[in-house]
Amino acid sequence: MAATPEQIRATAETYIAGLNASDPEVLAGVYAEGATVEDPVGGGTVHEGKDAIRGFYDNLAPLDMQATLLETRVCGSELLFNFELVTRFDENTATTINVWDLMVHGEDGKVTSMKAYWGAENVS
Amino acid sequence: MAATPEQIRATAETYIAGLNASDPEVLAGVYAEGATVEDPVGGGTVHEGKDAIRGFYDNLAPLDMQATLLETRVCGSELLFNFELVTRFDENTATTINVWDLMVHGEDGKVTSMKAYWGAENVS
Repeated sequence: MAATPEQIRATAETYIAGLNASDPEVLAGVYAEGATVEDPVGGGTVHEGKDAIRGFYDNLAPLDMQATLLETRVCGSELLFNFELVTRFDENTATTINVWDLMVHGEDGKVTSMKAYWGAENVS
Repeated sequence: MAATPEQIRATAETYIAGLNASDPEVLAGVYAEGATVEDPVGGGTVHEGKDAIRGFYDNLAPLDMQATLLETRVCGSELLFNFELVTRFDENTATTINVWDLMVHGEDGKVTSMKAYWGAENVS
């Protein structure tokens, strides 16, 4: 049975909660076994498989991140969502990135492919 | 030689101009021979090949459309862009759709895959 639109939409909430908690287990937990993650698209690196994906999120864990979900669109098995990610490096240094993520879901509701669309012009 | 970011970004301008002119030749002209168009994603129909794509845009030609480009992101060979499309049916009836289109470009700068993300909640 295919994942429902509500289940697919919930992935965005889980992902944002995972970022806010800097919790790689929650973040990697949304993915299916053979999933791929390209963040950002065109950046030259595609993380393939749960281990590689877990490694990608482990690298984010030490960061002080604050994520805010701005918009979600569920179209069939695909979830396109927009969020703002503020990363604080010290008292005086923070970057804000506006990201559009595209997550394709499998039948079981796990994400099989994630692509993150952002570039230098989306960083402030 | 791969298409430049400027060439890829220009596809969005061409596409918006094609919508504003209700010109199927301009709209279909951005695509490569074996391209696919899914508009909206999850709608159940994928138009495959130039003839099918031309047919899709021919159906739009009689409509009075006004498109405004709101944002573009170029990531590698992919173009994600947001536009608002106002379609006027008569003096008193118009719909406004907010669309995010994702267009993957081939080496020659032609679009090989287009996916349009919008649903009922993006129509007003």
